[in-house]
Amino acid sequence: MDFQDVIRKRRMVRAYTDDPVDPASIDRLITAARRAPSAGFAQGQYLVVVTSVETRQAIADLAGEPSYVEAGFAPWISRAPVHFVVCTSEADYHRRYQEADKVDDRGREIAWPVPYWWVDAGASMLLLLLAAVDEGLAAGFLGVHSIPGLRGLLEIPDDVTPIGVVTVGHPAPDRRSGSLERGWRAESDVVHRERWNKRT
Amino acid sequence: MDFQDVIRKRRMVRAYTDDPVDPASIDRLITAARRAPSAGFAQGQYLVVVTSVETRQAIADLAGEPSYVEAGFAPWISRAPVHFVVCTSEADYHRRYQEADKVDDRGREIAWPVPYWWVDAGASMLLLLLAAVDEGLAAGFLGVHSIPGLRGLLEIPDDVTPIGVVTVGHPAPDRRSGSLERGWRAESDVVHRERWNKRT
Repeated sequence: MDFQDVIRKRRMVRAYTDDPVDPASIDRLITAARRAPSAGFAQGQYLVVVTSVETRQAIADLAGEPSYVEAGFAPWISRAPVHFVVCTSEADYHRRYQEADKVDDRGREIAWPVPYWWVDAGASMLLLLLAAVDEGLAAGFLGVHSIPGLRGLLEIPDDVTPIGVVTVGHPAPDRRSGSLERGWRAESDVVHRERWNKRT
Repeated sequence: MDFQDVIRKRRMVRAYTDDPVDPASIDRLITAARRAPSAGFAQGQYLVVVTSVETRQAIADLAGEPSYVEAGFAPWISRAPVHFVVCTSEADYHRRYQEADKVDDRGREIAWPVPYWWVDAGASMLLLLLAAVDEGLAAGFLGVHSIPGLRGLLEIPDDVTPIGVVTVGHPAPDRRSGSLERGWRAESDVVHRERWNKRT
């Protein structure tokens, strides 16, 4: 699909049919996610790809899906045929920036004004969301509710942190997120030219 | 350009010709970046788009470009015709998650297990990098060296944090980053199926 169409069509979809996702599509999503950049090419991003019904239900339970279902909502998390659990390892970045080509004259690691392990994980997340659209699939994102819960369930090491789950499936009719009713911010609020206060 | 070609061709390019970037391309990059998702649709991502020679030189100076040039490297930062300074505002996320539909039963904001303001900024960064490729341009990323320096130079408010600069221009012959010699990690190291320790 054309890149511009992919970004235009991308939106968070929280309703999927019961149709399974082609394993070749899953592989292409993985390939896309692995193309994410990383500071110092640290490659501190990880994926746990879950298709098992039981594990998807356990992930949904950790996110409180049962109480949503009781309130009348559809079980969109457990129903998504594939969960891509996106993870990052801060430790990988420290290790990378303690190497000879990255330390300062005194052998010290940089001070990390910005925690790029989160930033780079966001790039991985976005690549999955876009690649799903390119496959004709729909994707959503579920923020992490319980890091210890996900670590325990998926046997994720202590120095790796799940940042959330990209849910992927074939789109079903859905209800748009209530948050979207807020509308987009004006471009003049969020995009500044040359410097923040300049008005052109 | 086809989405798969865009992601395959994307790489960090740190050499640009002196040709200016079409303002229509700049606008399309902005449009792409604004399509990034955000937690609760908080839209806490900001861009400062810089084309002025003097400001680009000042950004390069903050990143220590002069000492690189002294050491024999090309001034790739100042030479990039457009700088997209990607910013995020943690405060916007707190404000959003203090609204009625986001607080818990006792009116309290969530505990933020993951700082999504960095994650979402990473999505904006990646959209700029991809959209540049789609325009036939090249892009690089410069991590932030001095947050106070950039804030002062660009008049960025105190509750907004620059995370780095996406440099964009027409590609010139470049030297690949030394970090790439590390090679890609094996897929089996970074992608796990069903759970971390399972071997299939």
